Amino acid sequence: MDADKQPLRIGLVGFGCVGQGFYDILQQQPNLGLRVTRIAVKNPTKPRTLPAERFSYHADELLADPELDLLVEVIDDPAEAFRLVSTALRQGRRVVTANKAMLARHLPELVQLQATFGGTLLYEAAVCGSIPVIRTLDAYFSHEPLRSVSGIFNGSSNYVLTRMSEEGSDYAPALAEAQALGFAETDPALDMGAFDPRSKAVILAAHAYGVFLNTEEVLNLGIEGIGAADIAYAAALGQKIKVVAALERLTNGRVTALVTPQLVGPESPLYAVEREFNGVVLEAEYAGTQFLQGRGAGGHPTGSAVLADVLAVQRGTHYGYAKQDTAPEAQLLEELEVEVYLRHADEGVLREVLTWLELPADAIQHDGYGPYATGVVALQQLFAWRKELRQNGVFVARQGAVRLTAPVVQEAASAWA
Amino acid sequence: MDADKQPLRIGLVGFGCVGQGFYDILQQQPNLGLRVTRIAVKNPTKPRTLPAERFSYHADELLADPELDLLVEVIDDPAEAFRLVSTALRQGRRVVTANKAMLARHLPELVQLQATFGGTLLYEAAVCGSIPVIRTLDAYFSHEPLRSVSGIFNGSSNYVLTRMSEEGSDYAPALAEAQALGFAETDPALDMGAFDPRSKAVILAAHAYGVFLNTEEVLNLGIEGIGAADIAYAAALGQKIKVVAALERLTNGRVTALVTPQLVGPESPLYAVEREFNGVVLEAEYAGTQFLQGRGAGGHPTGSAVLADVLAVQRGTHYGYAKQDTAPEAQLLEELEVEVYLRHADEGVLREVLTWLELPADAIQHDGYGPYATGVVALQQLFAWRKELRQNGVFVARQGAVRLTAPVVQEAASAWA
Repeated sequence: MDADKQPLRIGLVGFGCVGQGFYDILQQQPNLGLRVTRIAVKNPTKPRTLPAERFSYHADELLADPELDLLVEVIDDPAEAFRLVSTALRQGRRVVTANKAMLARHLPELVQLQATFGGTLLYEAAVCGSIPVIRTLDAYFSHEPLRSVSGIFNGSSNYVLTRMSEEGSDYAPALAEAQALGFAETDPALDMGAFDPRSKAVILAAHAYGVFLNTEEVLNLGIEGIGAADIAYAAALGQKIKVVAALERLTNGRVTALVTPQLVGPESPLYAVEREFNGVVLEAEYAGTQFLQGRGAGGHPTGSAVLADVLAVQRGTHYGYAKQDTAPEAQLLEELEVEVYLRHADEGVLREVLTWLELPADAIQHDGYGPYATGVVALQQLFAWRKELRQNGVFVARQGAVRLTAPVVQEAASAWA
Repeated sequence: MDADKQPLRIGLVGFGCVGQGFYDILQQQPNLGLRVTRIAVKNPTKPRTLPAERFSYHADELLADPELDLLVEVIDDPAEAFRLVSTALRQGRRVVTANKAMLARHLPELVQLQATFGGTLLYEAAVCGSIPVIRTLDAYFSHEPLRSVSGIFNGSSNYVLTRMSEEGSDYAPALAEAQALGFAETDPALDMGAFDPRSKAVILAAHAYGVFLNTEEVLNLGIEGIGAADIAYAAALGQKIKVVAALERLTNGRVTALVTPQLVGPESPLYAVEREFNGVVLEAEYAGTQFLQGRGAGGHPTGSAVLADVLAVQRGTHYGYAKQDTAPEAQLLEELEVEVYLRHADEGVLREVLTWLELPADAIQHDGYGPYATGVVALQQLFAWRKELRQNGVFVARQGAVRLTAPVVQEAASAWA
């Protein structure tokens, strides 16, 4: 940095895994021209790695401080995060956040606030940790039509799947291990129930397609019901089970999004994405297939992404959301179907599940681990019964691409005739 | 685009594979606010896909045209490309190029010209086709210390290696196939002799480490001497042969670069990079391991990268070369060694090669395909004899990491003691 330049004064809200990772990287690189001048945390009694006088216990004090050049928000609570970030943007401030749940819920409003008040919000660390996927979609592919964006967006559930597959671990100890390593959200249901990758898919949809999806309307199925039988079933087919978030442009031009366990073969780059790593496959019209892989969790990797955003803000970067004006519509679930694999140890439960999903009773098969079923189901049914499937510990994975139902395809064809 | 905005007027110099790919993408997306108003080509008699009146046969006419907002240079000839690009930069113009040989030779001067005359030069398409590796290194990792940057940077030689490995093709027909598919440079020696990926490694070194290497001093070994025996040798070890370009920060803090065939195992993401695809592995201090993969050749993928640069120029983007001020020194070859595998069908030739490289005569072994040798050699010797190795059709691949020689490591240790 230039000796005569004032360092950029950063207000840091949150000092958990990401906040400490970011702070630590800055301490190790004192010549970047960046200084964390204030840190706000919620809990005054929690032991900290820095002396107590470094902390404020009221984030609002940072919002009221005109000396701060930039706010980094890395707290856990989406509602409080939105209050802080939206207030800062109303002040025209420059903000970096890693809060995916908050972003997924409020993205249209946050984009509007930037346009109205001239502030900037960047959030690379919110999706796929250290992988620069948001800026790649937003800037590099700003005008490249994308057929699909799919990937492993949750390091914690991927870690569990890897451990179950490699070591034959059971679900519970593998989850405990991921939590001990600090890869997991405070509430494990966010990771294991695929709520966390769903938020990330919704964020990417804004940059990949210019579409602002309603998070609650995106189907997410988790791995809470997974067992050794499912891992073995996939392995027998030469495949692995991965939680794949997928955005896809359908043949009718509309966009669909879903996050579910999926059987993935070695022909996919996602097959080799293991442990806490994340990976994203982009199918681009002109550029062809692109694949990005990197650490999806951890203090330093995510802190490094926060730092990259801080430096980008300093250079005057903001997201373009270039595809907003030509955004396709979101595809209705009613018109989509997908082939699934279902398993539950109790054949009675499984039989009931088949009636929910309108699959025939003879869809049930047996292998060395007990009963399972496969068949093509309407996405609408999976969505309608998703809570019951979760509560009953039914494991569901998709076995192929989401597609428009035959009547919709015929209708589209006759409209062209 | 805004209806009241004038389209950006582009002068396109070169209408080969990349130029046509770029032009074609623009034709398919007429609403981007970009218009190719002039095209210059060299050869007036060559058949073209556009009417003759679209072309100028004097690129200097474009340089003299004050109406052009931006120049895209995608010709084959590095000397003429440098003359055009440097002249345009002296005019303070905005330029996009894909000419890696020109860039590798003249980068310091081109950076200086931008600083002096206020122009801009972007060149994402010059390295790894469609993969946004330059902007990722330059901006996203602008302040992230990198341990290494290594990858497959040449789609043409990688295509040949894939075909030899998959189909058991011989070298010559596999090369002819790559050329027929349009993946190869006009002069196949650039691809097969690893001159092309060497240029790309030199370009990346400027962004990854702030180091401007002298291209001629970087060791490059090609695959002209490869045969079925080498593919089989690697396969027997569960590995593949890939041409890997590697930049590495050594334990003494210096940076080294080399491009050679290398035995790569399935633990590396490069193992799965096949055909014309390119891949780059970044080992970052805080972000951890990153991997990017995409099409490294072809008109549309490379044209798409050119388009991304044009749009970036329009947004005011320029490279930061942030690591220039803290750039480490380049490591002298004299102090480096590496383990290699060598093969030549004629044992007499192989024996002579061992004397060149100061390997013992008993380094020769035999397998079903004939004689080969392995051993640790000084990088300086490989560099000194590189032309003779090439001329004699000796195949050389490295089997491990480049490392400082024992005396250098001891010296460094005693300096610390």
